[in-house]
Amino acid sequence: MASKLKIIPLGGVGEIGKNMTLFEYGKDIIVVDCGIIFPDDDMPGIDLVIPDMSYLEKNIDRLRGFLITHGHEDHIGAMPFALQKLNVPVYGTKLTIALIEHKLKEAKVNGANLNCVSPGDTIRLGCFNVEFIKTSHSIAGACALAINTPIGTVIHTGDFKVDFTPIDGEPIDIRRFASYGTKGVLALLSDSTNVEYAGHTQSEREIGKTFESCFDKAKGRVIVATFASNIYRIQQIADVAISYGRMICFQGRSMVNIAEIAQDLGYLKLPEESVVEIEQLKKLRPDQICVLTTGSQGEPMSGLFRMANSSHRLNIGKGDLVIISASSIPGNERSVGRVINQLYQHGASVVYDHMADVHVSGHARKEELKLMFRLTNPQYFIPVHGEARHLHQHAELAQEMGVPEENIFVADLGNVVELSRNRGKIAGSVTAGSVMVDGSGVGDIGDVVLRDRKLLSEDGLFTVAITLNRQTGALLASPEILSRGFVYVRNSEELINTARELVRQEALKFESSNKSEWAGIKNNIRNGLKNYLYEQTKRRPMILPIIIEI
Amino acid sequence: MASKLKIIPLGGVGEIGKNMTLFEYGKDIIVVDCGIIFPDDDMPGIDLVIPDMSYLEKNIDRLRGFLITHGHEDHIGAMPFALQKLNVPVYGTKLTIALIEHKLKEAKVNGANLNCVSPGDTIRLGCFNVEFIKTSHSIAGACALAINTPIGTVIHTGDFKVDFTPIDGEPIDIRRFASYGTKGVLALLSDSTNVEYAGHTQSEREIGKTFESCFDKAKGRVIVATFASNIYRIQQIADVAISYGRMICFQGRSMVNIAEIAQDLGYLKLPEESVVEIEQLKKLRPDQICVLTTGSQGEPMSGLFRMANSSHRLNIGKGDLVIISASSIPGNERSVGRVINQLYQHGASVVYDHMADVHVSGHARKEELKLMFRLTNPQYFIPVHGEARHLHQHAELAQEMGVPEENIFVADLGNVVELSRNRGKIAGSVTAGSVMVDGSGVGDIGDVVLRDRKLLSEDGLFTVAITLNRQTGALLASPEILSRGFVYVRNSEELINTARELVRQEALKFESSNKSEWAGIKNNIRNGLKNYLYEQTKRRPMILPIIIEI
Repeated sequence: MASKLKIIPLGGVGEIGKNMTLFEYGKDIIVVDCGIIFPDDDMPGIDLVIPDMSYLEKNIDRLRGFLITHGHEDHIGAMPFALQKLNVPVYGTKLTIALIEHKLKEAKVNGANLNCVSPGDTIRLGCFNVEFIKTSHSIAGACALAINTPIGTVIHTGDFKVDFTPIDGEPIDIRRFASYGTKGVLALLSDSTNVEYAGHTQSEREIGKTFESCFDKAKGRVIVATFASNIYRIQQIADVAISYGRMICFQGRSMVNIAEIAQDLGYLKLPEESVVEIEQLKKLRPDQICVLTTGSQGEPMSGLFRMANSSHRLNIGKGDLVIISASSIPGNERSVGRVINQLYQHGASVVYDHMADVHVSGHARKEELKLMFRLTNPQYFIPVHGEARHLHQHAELAQEMGVPEENIFVADLGNVVELSRNRGKIAGSVTAGSVMVDGSGVGDIGDVVLRDRKLLSEDGLFTVAITLNRQTGALLASPEILSRGFVYVRNSEELINTARELVRQEALKFESSNKSEWAGIKNNIRNGLKNYLYEQTKRRPMILPIIIEI
Repeated sequence: MASKLKIIPLGGVGEIGKNMTLFEYGKDIIVVDCGIIFPDDDMPGIDLVIPDMSYLEKNIDRLRGFLITHGHEDHIGAMPFALQKLNVPVYGTKLTIALIEHKLKEAKVNGANLNCVSPGDTIRLGCFNVEFIKTSHSIAGACALAINTPIGTVIHTGDFKVDFTPIDGEPIDIRRFASYGTKGVLALLSDSTNVEYAGHTQSEREIGKTFESCFDKAKGRVIVATFASNIYRIQQIADVAISYGRMICFQGRSMVNIAEIAQDLGYLKLPEESVVEIEQLKKLRPDQICVLTTGSQGEPMSGLFRMANSSHRLNIGKGDLVIISASSIPGNERSVGRVINQLYQHGASVVYDHMADVHVSGHARKEELKLMFRLTNPQYFIPVHGEARHLHQHAELAQEMGVPEENIFVADLGNVVELSRNRGKIAGSVTAGSVMVDGSGVGDIGDVVLRDRKLLSEDGLFTVAITLNRQTGALLASPEILSRGFVYVRNSEELINTARELVRQEALKFESSNKSEWAGIKNNIRNGLKNYLYEQTKRRPMILPIIIEI
């Protein structure tokens, strides 16, 4: 008889991104979230990274469904990949499901079983009863989950903050968490993103003052770049803009898409007459215009990037005020800086996070995390949604809040956290990891290919093609040399001629040697070239000899 | 008769790094600073970037000397390259000159004419009288310059902050700036790095409290990573460590070097018996040990990186406290994050900038910049040491401080700012820009090579070698295919075989065509391959056909 609950993170631990956690009891498995992570800087050319789902594929018979906490990419991005192989029901709130629907349509994945729920609803999946609980986050429709299992309740917070004065007027349902805490919570899985920071994340409403003061001073157009999915932010900016007599124009593909979806679903409320298309802007005075655009991370081809770059119909220039209502995600600082530089060079004014309060995070800081511990009073604790430093700091915080050290599990990807009513342990692990997506290839690229890409990007390549008589080893033509990314070929004739002669001399030895010695000669050619090129340039291009036998 | 002063930035405007500014009057040219900048992420494989000095090479007869404000890489890093071609006298304070000397020795550049000055000294170079004025910065020996020219005094602040309570007890000499301001300052060139931030940068002394409290709680070893050149920081940490009964051990090449130089010169004062070598650590209890190391930016091969990585004799683990006393330079966030994650994974505690005040900047914020305007009361203003956004914001600040808009020059690299007693303008420009250093090559790498490196890093390469009879065009062997960084070759036999067959079919046309049509066939091979590979993989490797005619 199964009396143990298994919790298995397939993503989101040891990393911020590709969240995915399995809950397994007896014959039933349910999955919370199914996200992507963007490739690290040591994965050149990779488009995105998804969790390794092979464990789920093997156990597809037991899989009862996906529960999605909210519609951010790191929670829904891998859905098209998952549903192609694991077509089970998916549950989420209206906006979450609409965003998944949109994503599946773009990926041409049909036949998904998508189900809308409301906060407070409970879904039965096998032996699990899962309640969606309203939280606050930087996207509408975010929920935590109370996963009621045969041996107790597990609270999975999803991403959350404790916003007492949210824009939509519906604060995080802390009384519901408290009620579970009073009844008894077996385990808490909680968002670790902002555990490094003391205090309490500001309310979304707080930054409204900055927008008021910016719009109050602005005499020309106002262009605001923010995350397309942050409907609350968009609502807030639009409200201020409209109150200053401006019209709203959405720009950037995802901004236009999400604004439309959010308006259709009633998450975003704008008077129809206040929204205009880009063609109508020329009929308006600059002080009647507010553009809401993508590009707050300096992404190439995003709205703001192209506007700063003069490759968008809406060229930014003197008199324009640009507000970048976001903070830079680590790794994006330089791209964002470049966009801001260009905007200044074109004469615009820019307000961004170093200068003013134009952004608040969607994640709970230390005091909010403590509140979650006090509300739910869990027996076991598993920090999620964080790199190693976040998870370990969250574990320390749990101890401060009274969770015994042996009841805290800092898990690696694939670890099986096995809980019973009175004992918990990490009991082995299942296949887990990162699957890289590059073009249409999913998981076909590994370390060898990445290492080659990195080597090629550092000093380029140096190819030499040698043609031999198959029988005699006689050289049939002068070696052909082709180099890219190594030196500027036109200015390096001497270097290349000397290299060719060096190869030729070595290759002449083929004829006077036994065939068994040819591999050694090929090696000598490679090493001789490597040493010569390093001596001359202190660079190490990838050397690729091609021997053609005729 | 020359009555105009020319100020020409060859570096440090539109960028943070490779500072270099020329002052030219009549037959005399002097240069302030000579730095490097680290390559941007769109310069794969490049080691460092120096200013284009061709204008100076052309005008070497008029060049009177280099004046160096302080010993940071972005002010001295290009000296070895400069002095190889422009061997004129160099002036700086003791530590600055010692660091240049060290750098020249490593680069094997001999015969430099290096001269030590003290704050307050005045150097005569042609028609220029240059006074060194003590400032505060994150390295000892930093000075501003008062450049007295025939038409007035120019103040170049170098990098500075206004630290009223510096560690060495010698605050920035604001009375000297005031005295020049009272006599009349023609132009001010001022550090723009921190213009984005309101208020006043904290005194170096302020963070002493954090160190006190960290050492007070630490029970095991304490390892502190900071910038090797920040002698004040090192002094402060060592003082606290020693007061808690700990010995100091320096680790990391530049930390060991600079600590030695700074002790020799009297900038860093440590009791001899408190400094130990790594071999002696095993005789000490953990709570008697303080290691000062490089690696605060997560640099590969730095002290902290290797310690976190278990590739250093001093492996960090449970019980150790690591303090990262630095903030991440934009672009380094991910590397620093990775090091912190590894430290946590090994069980160490880590204190870093998100969590506590362990670092202060060496650059002036808005209120300090305003003070500099009030002290010097300049007629003209040129913001330096900043990207476009910093320079433009500093220009706005200058206007707020009463400098007329037409007297403010936001210059591009190479712009000639021409000043007379009553008029200033940008009068053309000279050759200027970035020279990339890669291995032993200086300036031989341009956009083509960089573009190839980037392409190669994204989707790798696909080489196909085709051997033809020179006369008949008959194919002499099956096409040889070599691919790297594109697909995992062992799993892609079918793809590669089909590609080879596709090439073979196309290459058979050589025989039935005139030689004049061969170029077209080669093009068809390239395009056919490109389309086929994209169709199959949605990737675009660099395609390199090699045709060998025999």
